[in-house]
Amino acid sequence: MKNGTKRWGFVANQELNTASGITVRGVLNMVMAAVDPEDPRSTIPLGHGDPSKFPCFRTSEVAEDAIVEAVRSAKFNHYSPTVGILPARRAIAEYLSLDLPYKLSPDDVFLTLGATQAIEISLTVLARPGANILLPRPGFPYYEARAAFSHLEVRHFDLLPEKGWEIDLDAVEALADENTAAMVIINPGNPCGNVFSYQHLEKVAETAKKRGILVIADEVYDHLAFGSKPFVPMGIFGSTVPVLTIGSISKRWIVPGWRVGWLVTSDPSEILKKTKIVDGIKGCLNISSDPVTFIQGALPQILEKTNKDFFRKIINILRQSSDICYEKIKEIDCITCPQKPEGSMFLMVKLNLSLLEDINDDIDFCYKLAKEECVIVLPGIAVGIKNWLRITFAVEPASLEEAMGRIKSFCQRHAKRPQ
Amino acid sequence: MKNGTKRWGFVANQELNTASGITVRGVLNMVMAAVDPEDPRSTIPLGHGDPSKFPCFRTSEVAEDAIVEAVRSAKFNHYSPTVGILPARRAIAEYLSLDLPYKLSPDDVFLTLGATQAIEISLTVLARPGANILLPRPGFPYYEARAAFSHLEVRHFDLLPEKGWEIDLDAVEALADENTAAMVIINPGNPCGNVFSYQHLEKVAETAKKRGILVIADEVYDHLAFGSKPFVPMGIFGSTVPVLTIGSISKRWIVPGWRVGWLVTSDPSEILKKTKIVDGIKGCLNISSDPVTFIQGALPQILEKTNKDFFRKIINILRQSSDICYEKIKEIDCITCPQKPEGSMFLMVKLNLSLLEDINDDIDFCYKLAKEECVIVLPGIAVGIKNWLRITFAVEPASLEEAMGRIKSFCQRHAKRPQ
Repeated sequence: MKNGTKRWGFVANQELNTASGITVRGVLNMVMAAVDPEDPRSTIPLGHGDPSKFPCFRTSEVAEDAIVEAVRSAKFNHYSPTVGILPARRAIAEYLSLDLPYKLSPDDVFLTLGATQAIEISLTVLARPGANILLPRPGFPYYEARAAFSHLEVRHFDLLPEKGWEIDLDAVEALADENTAAMVIINPGNPCGNVFSYQHLEKVAETAKKRGILVIADEVYDHLAFGSKPFVPMGIFGSTVPVLTIGSISKRWIVPGWRVGWLVTSDPSEILKKTKIVDGIKGCLNISSDPVTFIQGALPQILEKTNKDFFRKIINILRQSSDICYEKIKEIDCITCPQKPEGSMFLMVKLNLSLLEDINDDIDFCYKLAKEECVIVLPGIAVGIKNWLRITFAVEPASLEEAMGRIKSFCQRHAKRPQ
Repeated sequence: MKNGTKRWGFVANQELNTASGITVRGVLNMVMAAVDPEDPRSTIPLGHGDPSKFPCFRTSEVAEDAIVEAVRSAKFNHYSPTVGILPARRAIAEYLSLDLPYKLSPDDVFLTLGATQAIEISLTVLARPGANILLPRPGFPYYEARAAFSHLEVRHFDLLPEKGWEIDLDAVEALADENTAAMVIINPGNPCGNVFSYQHLEKVAETAKKRGILVIADEVYDHLAFGSKPFVPMGIFGSTVPVLTIGSISKRWIVPGWRVGWLVTSDPSEILKKTKIVDGIKGCLNISSDPVTFIQGALPQILEKTNKDFFRKIINILRQSSDICYEKIKEIDCITCPQKPEGSMFLMVKLNLSLLEDINDDIDFCYKLAKEECVIVLPGIAVGIKNWLRITFAVEPASLEEAMGRIKSFCQRHAKRPQ
């Protein structure tokens, strides 16, 4: 056998490329590659929900102090237990119980590597052969990627822009059958920036109960609500329907790089225990990595001691920047926002291609915008709806004004001339 | 539908229980449950490789300082890029290149959540339908668990106690066929405490090349060698055969709870790029969680600035405690250690059941030992060989003496009386 012609027996698993191509991360990596490295302007990232690099979004001192103290104690260098350390589980149970009509126990709480791993585990546990899951459209494509990886069939229900991005519950009813394991809701909404009302969530619970499916409530943006509706956790309806609540400190504390989240059974009737879902979660965690132990050790302080002023400050910036974003969009002809955002870090705008001269679709728009204006925006196709855009307003207000100005001149430059 | 009789459509994925039942963590959780909570003596953990709770094994000040500095800088709260941040990748490439005949590039390095995720990713990437993988026996059962999860067929080759736990390379040759993707070696050895010689690793490389399979070199215990043989990284033979090197700061810095490791292509001929294995790794990382960004940010300082005295101190304690363990075992009739350990944190002893009165097997031994003496030891069946025990000597020497004394009296108490 000559060098260079040797046949090797290993081949990469092809399914991975399919599964990984549709993540926000994958798409943003491609869009960012279009930025001209010679351009002297700074790149403004309106593509993902991570404003941590802006000084005004720096996390609370309490959180930093808690980490430093945990590291200096040298008490948390050890391996984590499978489900997380007890003080952290207890602190999360108490934190979440503040907003619930019943009290969660530490046994209801499983520490995860951010919300990402909580999604991974939920879908892995539910992926018995033949099962399907109902996902929102637009949504968060990590669910689709993980479902594909686990061979879990996906069925989409729409969020309705004309109804403030409420769930099309008739579609949920029609899609669910005896093989449907769960429906996913994301509240506050990614990518739409909506906040579900108590009444709508109650209807979600009733629909899910009627069809015998559980609700996975992705509340990674919990408490980031700055409009007229307060944030209502789905767990409130845990007695109607079992709920798997997904959460994290990533967004409320602006520390997505800290990788601590949770998967919580909001299920006072203990249906998830009886149906062995809880055993499945533990089994899955047994063969997975854990959040850093000293960050778990810091969690009680972070959850209990963070100053309300910090939360207020963040909410105020988000309200201000969402206002700026929404108003500036009105000045741009070719994009329309059907719904003023009330929560999370995003809004969706519809692209009117008929007003543009040389833009083929949302991907083309985002590539050219990145290339010409160093502004990163996510094509709607990445979240399930073509020829829309997802824009993050969670950036420093001055940068956001600058970015919206660049988008405006980009759109004017590419506007169709009157014939 | 009455309450309590409602049929729910979700069912847990049964494969998880199979996959998770055979992890060290799963087995140790069961053994530890046998400890009598009323027993006033402290439980001595000789079950897992995590001595971080003992003051003499406290990590280096440099490492703690580096974390504190990274957190206080507030520069590393953001999401990590898919493959890890560049300064961390560069630091790992330089750290590993010190012991190699060629220079690794940052592009060869993928940051992972400890070695655990590096194993997960390697096996996921190689798990195309029909593929098999060769694993050592005894070994580290996380490989078996992950292979089961990915439907990758496992074939075992033996480590030979009479040859200092060297690999039975004839068996490797016989087991490999055109569907064999890789063989795994763990050096320094878990669970056997052996260190492979340069000559033996060279033969491993030649065998793997001959059969066209890649070598996954699990070097999570790298540099923890305190006997006659130095630690030799498998990457030295990367020009003979492509090597995926798995490593971590967990063991050398005694911080398994920090969850930072790496998967490295030690492959100067770039075969893993050409065969798309590298694309597969990136695809898999795209749908996985990342190590904490501020710990990545601390990594250059940790790798470059840690005082040699710290490493020397740890090696000296391990040498001393392995001596204590080995000598004390000689005083106990029913267990035999075929090979004085020269590395890692473990040794294997063979259980002579014919000398014991009321012990059925290794699991029974470990349960009763835990119950009666509050000493935790891992049954050999968990690492693939029945009626052996894996003992960790990486504990504070005084605790180790105490534990070995308790094991001795346990064995005497259960010894078969002369007829």
